[in-house]
Amino acid sequence: MKSKLEDTLEKVYKGKLKPSEALKVLKDYPYQDLSFAKIDHHREIRRGFPEIVYGLGKTEEQLFKIASEILKKGHNLLITKIEESVFKHLKKRISGLSYNATAKVVFKKQKKAIEGKGTIIIMTAGTTDIPVAEEAFVTCDVLGNRVKKIYDVGVAGIHRLFGEYEKIREARVIITVAGMEGALPSVVAGLVKAPVIAVPTSVGYGASFQGLAALLAMLNSCRGGVGVVNIDNGFGAAYLASLINHL
Amino acid sequence: MKSKLEDTLEKVYKGKLKPSEALKVLKDYPYQDLSFAKIDHHREIRRGFPEIVYGLGKTEEQLFKIASEILKKGHNLLITKIEESVFKHLKKRISGLSYNATAKVVFKKQKKAIEGKGTIIIMTAGTTDIPVAEEAFVTCDVLGNRVKKIYDVGVAGIHRLFGEYEKIREARVIITVAGMEGALPSVVAGLVKAPVIAVPTSVGYGASFQGLAALLAMLNSCRGGVGVVNIDNGFGAAYLASLINHL
Amino acid sequence: MKSKLEDTLEKVYKGKLKPSEALKVLKDYPYQDLSFAKIDHHREIRRGFPEIVYGLGKTEEQLFKIASEILKKGHNLLITKIEESVFKHLKKRISGLSYNATAKVVFKKQKKAIEGKGTIIIMTAGTTDIPVAEEAFVTCDVLGNRVKKIYDVGVAGIHRLFGEYEKIREARVIITVAGMEGALPSVVAGLVKAPVIAVPTSVGYGASFQGLAALLAMLNSCRGGVGVVNIDNGFGAAYLASLINHL
Amino acid sequence: MKSKLEDTLEKVYKGKLKPSEALKVLKDYPYQDLSFAKIDHHREIRRGFPEIVYGLGKTEEQLFKIASEILKKGHNLLITKIEESVFKHLKKRISGLSYNATAKVVFKKQKKAIEGKGTIIIMTAGTTDIPVAEEAFVTCDVLGNRVKKIYDVGVAGIHRLFGEYEKIREARVIITVAGMEGALPSVVAGLVKAPVIAVPTSVGYGASFQGLAALLAMLNSCRGGVGVVNIDNGFGAAYLASLINHL
Amino acid sequence: MKSKLEDTLEKVYKGKLKPSEALKVLKDYPYQDLSFAKIDHHREIRRGFPEIVYGLGKTEEQLFKIASEILKKGHNLLITKIEESVFKHLKKRISGLSYNATAKVVFKKQKKAIEGKGTIIIMTAGTTDIPVAEEAFVTCDVLGNRVKKIYDVGVAGIHRLFGEYEKIREARVIITVAGMEGALPSVVAGLVKAPVIAVPTSVGYGASFQGLAALLAMLNSCRGGVGVVNIDNGFGAAYLASLINHL
Amino acid sequence: MKSKLEDTLEKVYKGKLKPSEALKVLKDYPYQDLSFAKIDHHREIRRGFPEIVYGLGKTEEQLFKIASEILKKGHNLLITKIEESVFKHLKKRISGLSYNATAKVVFKKQKKAIEGKGTIIIMTAGTTDIPVAEEAFVTCDVLGNRVKKIYDVGVAGIHRLFGEYEKIREARVIITVAGMEGALPSVVAGLVKAPVIAVPTSVGYGASFQGLAALLAMLNSCRGGVGVVNIDNGFGAAYLASLINHL
Amino acid sequence: MKSKLEDTLEKVYKGKLKPSEALKVLKDYPYQDLSFAKIDHHREIRRGFPEIVYGLGKTEEQLFKIASEILKKGHNLLITKIEESVFKHLKKRISGLSYNATAKVVFKKQKKAIEGKGTIIIMTAGTTDIPVAEEAFVTCDVLGNRVKKIYDVGVAGIHRLFGEYEKIREARVIITVAGMEGALPSVVAGLVKAPVIAVPTSVGYGASFQGLAALLAMLNSCRGGVGVVNIDNGFGAAYLASLINHL
Amino acid sequence: MKSKLEDTLEKVYKGKLKPSEALKVLKDYPYQDLSFAKIDHHREIRRGFPEIVYGLGKTEEQLFKIASEILKKGHNLLITKIEESVFKHLKKRISGLSYNATAKVVFKKQKKAIEGKGTIIIMTAGTTDIPVAEEAFVTCDVLGNRVKKIYDVGVAGIHRLFGEYEKIREARVIITVAGMEGALPSVVAGLVKAPVIAVPTSVGYGASFQGLAALLAMLNSCRGGVGVVNIDNGFGAAYLASLINHL
Repeated sequence: MKSKLEDTLEKVYKGKLKPSEALKVLKDYPYQDLSFAKIDHHREIRRGFPEIVYGLGKTEEQLFKIASEILKKGHNLLITKIEESVFKHLKKRISGLSYNATAKVVFKKQKKAIEGKGTIIIMTAGTTDIPVAEEAFVTCDVLGNRVKKIYDVGVAGIHRLFGEYEKIREARVIITVAGMEGALPSVVAGLVKAPVIAVPTSVGYGASFQGLAALLAMLNSCRGGVGVVNIDNGFGAAYLASLINHL
Repeated sequence: MKSKLEDTLEKVYKGKLKPSEALKVLKDYPYQDLSFAKIDHHREIRRGFPEIVYGLGKTEEQLFKIASEILKKGHNLLITKIEESVFKHLKKRISGLSYNATAKVVFKKQKKAIEGKGTIIIMTAGTTDIPVAEEAFVTCDVLGNRVKKIYDVGVAGIHRLFGEYEKIREARVIITVAGMEGALPSVVAGLVKAPVIAVPTSVGYGASFQGLAALLAMLNSCRGGVGVVNIDNGFGAAYLASLINHL
Repeated sequence: MKSKLEDTLEKVYKGKLKPSEALKVLKDYPYQDLSFAKIDHHREIRRGFPEIVYGLGKTEEQLFKIASEILKKGHNLLITKIEESVFKHLKKRISGLSYNATAKVVFKKQKKAIEGKGTIIIMTAGTTDIPVAEEAFVTCDVLGNRVKKIYDVGVAGIHRLFGEYEKIREARVIITVAGMEGALPSVVAGLVKAPVIAVPTSVGYGASFQGLAALLAMLNSCRGGVGVVNIDNGFGAAYLASLINHL
Repeated sequence: MKSKLEDTLEKVYKGKLKPSEALKVLKDYPYQDLSFAKIDHHREIRRGFPEIVYGLGKTEEQLFKIASEILKKGHNLLITKIEESVFKHLKKRISGLSYNATAKVVFKKQKKAIEGKGTIIIMTAGTTDIPVAEEAFVTCDVLGNRVKKIYDVGVAGIHRLFGEYEKIREARVIITVAGMEGALPSVVAGLVKAPVIAVPTSVGYGASFQGLAALLAMLNSCRGGVGVVNIDNGFGAAYLASLINHL
Repeated sequence: MKSKLEDTLEKVYKGKLKPSEALKVLKDYPYQDLSFAKIDHHREIRRGFPEIVYGLGKTEEQLFKIASEILKKGHNLLITKIEESVFKHLKKRISGLSYNATAKVVFKKQKKAIEGKGTIIIMTAGTTDIPVAEEAFVTCDVLGNRVKKIYDVGVAGIHRLFGEYEKIREARVIITVAGMEGALPSVVAGLVKAPVIAVPTSVGYGASFQGLAALLAMLNSCRGGVGVVNIDNGFGAAYLASLINHL
Repeated sequence: MKSKLEDTLEKVYKGKLKPSEALKVLKDYPYQDLSFAKIDHHREIRRGFPEIVYGLGKTEEQLFKIASEILKKGHNLLITKIEESVFKHLKKRISGLSYNATAKVVFKKQKKAIEGKGTIIIMTAGTTDIPVAEEAFVTCDVLGNRVKKIYDVGVAGIHRLFGEYEKIREARVIITVAGMEGALPSVVAGLVKAPVIAVPTSVGYGASFQGLAALLAMLNSCRGGVGVVNIDNGFGAAYLASLINHL
Repeated sequence: MKSKLEDTLEKVYKGKLKPSEALKVLKDYPYQDLSFAKIDHHREIRRGFPEIVYGLGKTEEQLFKIASEILKKGHNLLITKIEESVFKHLKKRISGLSYNATAKVVFKKQKKAIEGKGTIIIMTAGTTDIPVAEEAFVTCDVLGNRVKKIYDVGVAGIHRLFGEYEKIREARVIITVAGMEGALPSVVAGLVKAPVIAVPTSVGYGASFQGLAALLAMLNSCRGGVGVVNIDNGFGAAYLASLINHL
Repeated sequence: MKSKLEDTLEKVYKGKLKPSEALKVLKDYPYQDLSFAKIDHHREIRRGFPEIVYGLGKTEEQLFKIASEILKKGHNLLITKIEESVFKHLKKRISGLSYNATAKVVFKKQKKAIEGKGTIIIMTAGTTDIPVAEEAFVTCDVLGNRVKKIYDVGVAGIHRLFGEYEKIREARVIITVAGMEGALPSVVAGLVKAPVIAVPTSVGYGASFQGLAALLAMLNSCRGGVGVVNIDNGFGAAYLASLINHL
């Protein structure tokens, strides 16, 4: 934004732009207004990544328009929390879309370079945590990172975790996905130098209270070096991991 | 209670007791009424242990009277959740009382036989969980069990836990005491055959919500074989452990 | 795990195994990796029971593969929280499967010996608590215990409970299943020497908050000797009861 | 209020009162304005009882003025939730005040007739519930009822409750006061015809969450015929019991 | 129960009954065991009303058997929280059943005498509270009370409430049914001598949290004389009202 | 109401009305009783707006009758939270009804004058907040206000908000609609003189807890000048905004 | 801010300011940096009122410096949530400070003009709500409004409220302050055209949960036209009322 | 740990170590047992940082012993959540200790090299968030990072934040500390490429619920790239930031 502002001020100074015009430029520049949504094309410059689309609650028509505009600019497309039926409709109107049915995400990679510096490892405590982990996996991938998966290594059978010890130590960033008692990030963070991102999941029943138990456990991790994201937010964890991995 | 009932019915049948007298006997027998409290002297027979006194919210005078009556019957005395100042007053009026200041319990062992069959092991995740663990320790001891302590072996430094692996496997019952993310019982229960009793503690701050985080984590333990008691309830865990150890 | 470790160290010492090979052995031994799940075949040795499968959120294909591997080793199979439609599919591919429709569990007993030392009694407060109690019943059975059921003896009609008094006293372990005000375990624990495992259920409406009311009541049981498991967790209660009953 | 309205309308009709005067009368009649409080002297007529003063958060000066005005009208005075130090100050300025230190209530009976038709029985589950029960006791007494107390008969020692069975059945209304798992009203309501009023108390710790556990348990009572009041609200229970007992 | 006990003791005393037989009598008498349910036929004697059946979560077969046994004894039948489809099945097998579709209750009155002494008035704050109010209405009716309804008189249009003032004052007991802010019982209890029973309902959305807002408001009623029941528990309110109305 | 009362008193004074008749008038005047609902036709006089109908939980027949009566008086009609299928049925029986499918409201404007003094601006943080914003939009419109919409200007892309800065400053009242972290009203209220009404929405998942996160954030707005309404309550926000805009 | 931006752009255009200088101006203008706090002197222009200081958690030294700077600019000073001991220290260093001990606010009016157009009425449900109401009162006063108080008119004695009906109808804005069941704003909003601001208070005990009950009740007000602020936030309510009153 | 294991296996292979001795080595190596605490000296190797001591709930004697052992190894010392009085006692026994009274942390830097690669910026929303920010500041410093502070830039005065825009963009990692509505991280994360760590604080009152409001808001941040830690956990945020800054 700075260069834009500086640039505009330069032009005004040199008399190439009137104040009233400058006001317009400064107001309208960085996003595109579709009336129901304002697409932030500038995000790639400011944030290092294109805008990711949160699919839940958007109509098919809205998703189609947003997706089209993003792809037109040459960005990678990623839409999360989206049902297969919606994907099927979009697919008819936009070519080259892929769908990860476990993760419920639609994506299209127009840029394929891997720019993340190390490997992101995604671990789950159980088999039922896999959908959230897959959302993180596709996001990491679309954002240009090397990713490895280690699934079903929860703390109840701690030897399963230790069997993967060598692999875990090689990660530059680790994403741990766990429901129920959510203890996985605490144990993992005690074993490695890598920052650990913790994703509570809503798997479980009764006193898991849709992931609240895991969320609280992770926030209370007795071990420093753990950052927590929202319940079932595989995308958010991946986005943060990718930011770190691109440092 | 059955033998009492049977016995009374027998006497009535044989004409040794009138129905109206029988009614009184059946009504008044098993407890002693102090107006503000009804002491259950029969508990030792029915439950295998004498009545334990919950100290919080009772006046010194009430505690003195209850303690005196229990000791008079030859039972072991145990009063939990009691301040040192109250202990000092009681001590002047009742001889032989001991006080565990960390656990805040008063006790007097009149029966010293160890009847529990194996060893109960009490583990804590951190140093700040020790007061609750000590309440469990004294309770187990007063109820006639062999007890061992393993403190500060939380999951954040999982190798500390594994250093104690041999000891842990020898327990007949295990009590795990943990605050914050409360992951210790899940890990321990995955390693042993012994039943594991989990005590959440209110240590921590913020999103520990006075032990709620640890409580929920323990209830959601992905591993079977874990029974949970109330937050900070070292006594309750010990009582249950002792019942199991006496089987 | 110890004997494995000892054994491996012995072999290394005697030159029968190279350090690099030993590392592999120690890492890979006790579980079988299906990529989406890591089956813990060693659990029977370490824990005394085979691995029980939590069915919720697993695909049919995943369940089929896990079940097949467990049965191949000669273990008893138990899958909890599973819909009848899924069972019907599994049944076509695996012979000898049974389904308890009330409990929603699939099981197959390949080992039928009863090794539990006493009787486990399962009680419910009401008729609507029966599905959870049945999950506990099948689990106890598959894990090799003698089990009896006493249903619909909640505290609102306390005389119904007393009609079963003789039976209750004979139990080695008692599982109490109750929703709503969850008072059954408190009353029962006051009457017996057996450890009492309390299972809150999500029956009820309004301020039962899906079992929270019963859960809190049970955790606050004024009577020692009660261990609580997660809401609707009949399996967990049975697993703990079985561990105790095998002591 | 009706007769007042009717009466005023009559006077207006007969020309004895102008409309503008009638408006004033109708507006100002039934309460006395002390600027910080509006005393409802009419309550005795409308509700059958005088106004009870909630002491918490009122200054000594405010309490003095309110109390003086109530006594001036010849009503009974009852101030709840009030510290002994405040009572001592009030006592110097108003003669004949009594203080129940357990209940923390100040009272003065100017009318002593017992108009309640039957006996109200107040029961507690434990000794620590007594302060709340005493608040109920004094309130019932000041409101003109016969009251009996049965303390420390919680469900953990259910035989203590049955020892009081005869007494309990004689009550016209029963108030049950219980913290922790709050099961007492459920059991009692299953045994009697009298309406049962349940008062949860904040005794306990950990997952009692300051009385929430008992409150939820009571609201979920599986037995009809139970009305619940706020946590620690001995006064409210007594007021309701007295209304019923005066029917 | 007392007379039964006395009577049995008498017989034993007179040698007409052996102790062992007496034990059986005392154990088996007051309920009928259907294995999945224990019907409490004695409740009518002990509590003054027959057993009401809670329909939710019971199978059609279970409901049929329970209903049949209750009707066989000549009691009135009332089953709450039951879908119309279930009613249609029951109707084919049991003659004379009625269904209140708004309240979702099945009933059959075999005894029609009105024994309640006064009138119970049922008020709702809004139109959407009516289903819960109707459950209360049918229950009051089946239990032998005179009942009147005053619907849609919530506090937002307080003049609607005052239009009904005369009627309200004639009630012996008042049931107020309200969701959202749940203020109706507080206002009503300030106007009458009758005890007020408050039923929070789960109508509303957002921060009503399924009736929690109304529940808390009612528990905090600044006015004494209000007893609260569970959210949506029209039956419980009616049962309590009926007990009071029969005093 | 005042003029009614005054007027009635005048008539009584002048002998034109008997007291008993006056009582009736005062009691029955301002609402129309449909037995299941009491329509408040007087609201337009007292409150400045006609009664708005809350559609959720009302039957089609009830809605038809209420709508008919409101339209008969010449008022504008607005029914909120109503499914399209219900609208279709109503449309057949009442002419001129419109339906906003995004907002799920039915309306008919019989009075079209704009009497609000300034412009109400409705902003949303995201695209998924639009349905709630549309409910507010239609309500503002039906209540006679000029309204503008600014959608998808959440704080995550704060420059989008600043692009609308000029527009925002022109509002007389601002309604901000936001889910998730609910930060929009805090930022907006820091920029303008207009009062800001905050509507939390239930969009989001996991730790949004159906809008609780946004609700709490808005209540804690560090900036004065923000009034909060219930989660998803677009209608309530619009009603308040309209009251302010008509001042 | 706009005029600042426009003005700066003008200067740059005319060559009176270099772009690099303009950047500084735009960055540094509207606040004063005290390192621990950034005082927003521009708020008076942007928002219509000076910055109000939230006293809780600030040191005396910090408060002294902030207060000095605000007074130096000629603004009115208002510091909320501040203990009397702190006031006494400030008073020694700053002349002319006043303290409202009930409200716990420090203030100094340097500008005394009343610019609010109508009267703001502040009502409380009870006597214990007065401290919060007084915070609102002082804030309204300092912000230049005419204010009236009507205290202790809660819904339990609804006739007290009606006695004040004439006064209430004259308000341009109404602030209602209530704890416990929080019903006052619902009733008031049904009677007037003025917008109603609702302040829940933390008075009460037990299930008031520190004001949560009142907060939820107010958010669920069945009547439109109510805006809610944080629990005990008298200041926030007054700030919003003042904004509205200055329209 | 791996090299240790490998090394030990090598020695066993070469006959330099017996299996039984190897078992001991593997068990006892990486921590030092003080009975009440097990210090993890190896953490510096495994995790890259020495063990940080959580001061709350530890006795002075325990803290002295732990601190002494850590300093003896040449590590930097950091003790969090510790009162000044405790510091004063420790200071007498250990030379060179410093105390940050705002942050309540004790520290001693024995290693002073800055190894973090970029700058960590710590921002607060308000003045009252500073103590938590200072805990983060000292931790970052002790762990060898360059740190800058930007305090009191909350979203209510968004221009204050923009005045710091240039500085913010230079950070390698950003820690945002905010209570109340907790919106700061959402806004900041929308402006930069750096990963943002969000620390909710318990400042505020009423519906902040001790930081719950800010915590939920941060977890629901509509912007990716935000990792949340426990309420008031400045240390945890700094530890994570430092791990990232050392990558």
